[in-house]
Amino acid sequence: MKIITVSREFGSGGRELGKRLAGLLGFEYFDREIVTAISEQTKLNENYVESIIENHLPFNFPVSFGRTFSYYPITESSALKILSAQHKIIKEIASKENCVIVGRSANIILEEYNPFNIFVYAEMDSKIKRCRERAATEEHLTDNEMRKKIKQVDSYRAKNHAFVSDTKWGAKEGYHLCINTTGMEIKKIAEFTAQYSECWFKQHGVE
Amino acid sequence: MKIITVSREFGSGGRELGKRLAGLLGFEYFDREIVTAISEQTKLNENYVESIIENHLPFNFPVSFGRTFSYYPITESSALKILSAQHKIIKEIASKENCVIVGRSANIILEEYNPFNIFVYAEMDSKIKRCRERAATEEHLTDNEMRKKIKQVDSYRAKNHAFVSDTKWGAKEGYHLCINTTGMEIKKIAEFTAQYSECWFKQHGVE
Repeated sequence: MKIITVSREFGSGGRELGKRLAGLLGFEYFDREIVTAISEQTKLNENYVESIIENHLPFNFPVSFGRTFSYYPITESSALKILSAQHKIIKEIASKENCVIVGRSANIILEEYNPFNIFVYAEMDSKIKRCRERAATEEHLTDNEMRKKIKQVDSYRAKNHAFVSDTKWGAKEGYHLCINTTGMEIKKIAEFTAQYSECWFKQHGVE
Repeated sequence: MKIITVSREFGSGGRELGKRLAGLLGFEYFDREIVTAISEQTKLNENYVESIIENHLPFNFPVSFGRTFSYYPITESSALKILSAQHKIIKEIASKENCVIVGRSANIILEEYNPFNIFVYAEMDSKIKRCRERAATEEHLTDNEMRKKIKQVDSYRAKNHAFVSDTKWGAKEGYHLCINTTGMEIKKIAEFTAQYSECWFKQHGVE
């Protein structure tokens, strides 16, 4: 099975790259779909599942999640249930079909499956610009607030990564290709990365 | 002018990639040629010039260089002469023709010229293997000795980089594309990187 994992800085266009890659190569695409699957399997609320996966908050931490909190207090058992369901589902996906998985530490979880691991990053100004173009709901944020948000999301991602690996999130050694998207159309990057990944699979004997 | 800089870990195949890129794109190629040019311009021995450029040894450091040392003690003035000649020559090259420059901190020296900066790296086992395939003279080294040598050369490169920049050598943020060559033929990587760099120049308005 051919598996591409895309890890990415928030606002770098990694999600779009993953989608386009899947389209160009005819692979299945997984991102948010994994959260839905976990929610179905564990019978836990989807937003709650996402909070756990994205933040890995310390168990029993006295934090408010908006309304979700009152329905689902974070317990060690439900967090472990969700994380283990995530592992299981990602491995199930990977053993079934050629796929592109964005985020979710899939590069670590699927290590034994010999995935092609991409890291997508960009300069801060470029990420702010891309966020503005995409997310209408965040238009009210100032550049400084946007910068803070980007850093925060990435620090969660780094923390989640540290939860499953000794390597550092975003350190190039953990990936086969690291792409700086500053000033580039993701569409173009996708065309070239699709070719490269096919070549990578061939050279590494992955079928 | 279109400029590609290739920074690389020792044994990762970066030099071959640079040469092939230049061939595929019809660009001039510079690496060792810069040392020769500095030597001609400063009238200093080529090996001596290389020692200074590669190691940036502290001035007046009581070190033996083999025979070279007895002819050319390192003085602050000759070291500065060499480093400033290197800056000048690299800028001259970059303002004259499309080119690929391997090493020499060209990515930093040419920052204002908007170069396309590549970093080439690989897993240690892959670098040892590549070194063995290339350099017949190093066949007598054990794996451990080879590993030590690779680390040493790279630590020199990191030090040289720190001499001209505040950024960290090899940290992906300083490059547009970071390529892990483990298990890959450099020839294949070159074909794809040539295409990508043409696309990068186009999207960044470099002609």
